Amino acid sequence: MAEPDPSPRRPRLVLAMRPDILDLVLPAPVRARLDALADVHPAPVTDWAAPDAAAPLAAADVLLTGWGCPPLDAAALDRAPRLAAVLHAAGTVKGHVRPEVWQRGIAVSSAADANAAPVVEFTLATVWLAARGALGASAAYARGELPTYRSRRGADGATIGVIGASRIGRGVIDRLRAAPTGFRILLADPYVTAAEAAALGAEHVDPDELCRRSDIVTVHAPDLPETHHLLDARRLALLPDGAAVINTARGRLVDTAALTAECATGRLDAYLDVTDPEPLPPDHALHRLRNVLLTPHIAGCQGTEVQRLGGYAVDELERWTLGEPLLGAVRADDLARIA
Amino acid sequence: MAEPDPSPRRPRLVLAMRPDILDLVLPAPVRARLDALADVHPAPVTDWAAPDAAAPLAAADVLLTGWGCPPLDAAALDRAPRLAAVLHAAGTVKGHVRPEVWQRGIAVSSAADANAAPVVEFTLATVWLAARGALGASAAYARGELPTYRSRRGADGATIGVIGASRIGRGVIDRLRAAPTGFRILLADPYVTAAEAAALGAEHVDPDELCRRSDIVTVHAPDLPETHHLLDARRLALLPDGAAVINTARGRLVDTAALTAECATGRLDAYLDVTDPEPLPPDHALHRLRNVLLTPHIAGCQGTEVQRLGGYAVDELERWTLGEPLLGAVRADDLARIA
Repeated sequence: MAEPDPSPRRPRLVLAMRPDILDLVLPAPVRARLDALADVHPAPVTDWAAPDAAAPLAAADVLLTGWGCPPLDAAALDRAPRLAAVLHAAGTVKGHVRPEVWQRGIAVSSAADANAAPVVEFTLATVWLAARGALGASAAYARGELPTYRSRRGADGATIGVIGASRIGRGVIDRLRAAPTGFRILLADPYVTAAEAAALGAEHVDPDELCRRSDIVTVHAPDLPETHHLLDARRLALLPDGAAVINTARGRLVDTAALTAECATGRLDAYLDVTDPEPLPPDHALHRLRNVLLTPHIAGCQGTEVQRLGGYAVDELERWTLGEPLLGAVRADDLARIA
Repeated sequence: MAEPDPSPRRPRLVLAMRPDILDLVLPAPVRARLDALADVHPAPVTDWAAPDAAAPLAAADVLLTGWGCPPLDAAALDRAPRLAAVLHAAGTVKGHVRPEVWQRGIAVSSAADANAAPVVEFTLATVWLAARGALGASAAYARGELPTYRSRRGADGATIGVIGASRIGRGVIDRLRAAPTGFRILLADPYVTAAEAAALGAEHVDPDELCRRSDIVTVHAPDLPETHHLLDARRLALLPDGAAVINTARGRLVDTAALTAECATGRLDAYLDVTDPEPLPPDHALHRLRNVLLTPHIAGCQGTEVQRLGGYAVDELERWTLGEPLLGAVRADDLARIA
């Protein structure tokens, strides 16, 4: 393990991500800030063992990683003996940061905070549609059925069940609280106490009660063995008729077959940005249900928003060079409970 | 014309709306406030000429109208010689308030302000989806096509074209300005100057330029002869590839056949809560396009939100009994430029 220098003036930095996204992650203004802070090796690395990666890795103090970064295992780390920080210009670090990274005392940061904002917006957009029963009404409309004054639903007083007080789950709760509709907010999260939930503005319930009482359920839990099929057939059956399920988190949280069956009868609507499996094959029934809005994992930063991730990583680099704490620090024991 | 009493202590009030929505418009707490302000005839009127309507109309100072209120023409007004105010617990008064009402000096108020908030939320929800190309991505996903890093779109810096600085149009602009995405906002409205648009936070352009430059166009203009097919085939063709059209206003603003053709090729996406004709027959092609979200006019107050309309009308009644100005006053010359 390298002794990290507590205040390196100008770290040597290697970019580790797909070369074709570099200009999205680090457009000129962001790249200029990066170049002002570090000596950046010109070519991004995507294969730690590539011959031309050897010299930059041997000298690297910092890796600025992104989508397409290969796993940082022991063999990779052996090639980068000075490495003191891995700053990820994307959300989860689960894809590339191995336990060895922390074991060698290397600081890890992710831009998950920057990725969260668009996911919160996307989730809220689907909540507003779901609160009026938009997809079910659209499907019925295509069959020639018009809503009646009685069948129409409004947002006022709707009960929203949030599963997981993650960064995004808390962001969603904050926004729901701020709405003038008097949403009732239920929260299921085994790591949150009733008092903590109340402080967030939510009522703490177990997942079964959450399903029984919610007009809309939105999942924001991490993908862990214990959250696999958290919404299974039994819990989906607890949801009231006409309820909606929103998933902008991870596909494995929901039993896709069970949800498909509930949506096919028209009993539930669904807004699914993630699925299990993902991508979903084109012949899957979910693609053909008009009361399901199925999108190909587009809720996080994308397009013009990707520079937020690069900008966040450059902010982290600046904090690191100044010896300040990393705002997006990820610790080894976080991996068991984060996305 | 009756001489309106400037400060009637307890007006006599007749309800004029479909009886089956009374409990939605005036649930118990709202009804209690109404009963505290006025002597309310127990049965709502839906036919001015009905024998049992004669006495309550002859005595009525105020009509509290709602969905299903018949037209207030000269014959109807002759039956209500004391009538001094028509307070509408819904949006537009175009359906029932005839010029004779104003000619007789009767005050008119609508709850369009209260109806606007859900429409603004619905519009914003579709803007957030459209800014990520959600419907087009969903349609492509169903064909087995996944977005690439290059084809993905983000909200940051997207250009939103707002047609019509109506109550709802201004509400949408306010929300777009408050978003942290740096939306560029274009506004087309012949009644707004460039300086007024700038004060709202938008750039004033003509409809053609708006279409050429917008990633998303959302219409909030009134339904008037001069706004008929404001978005016709020629203007829709000006929109860039991949743009989206949002209509939560009135169907006649958009040429349905032209928009259907553009959506069928996949060049444009659309979020349509209103259409022309409306309702759209179940065999219409728009129902079958996955890049179109077609809903049956559900963006305004509905379900639990309907009491906002009744509450607004009761607030107006309170102002009227106190001799205060009506916040939702509608004047005769407003009809030519409002929804």
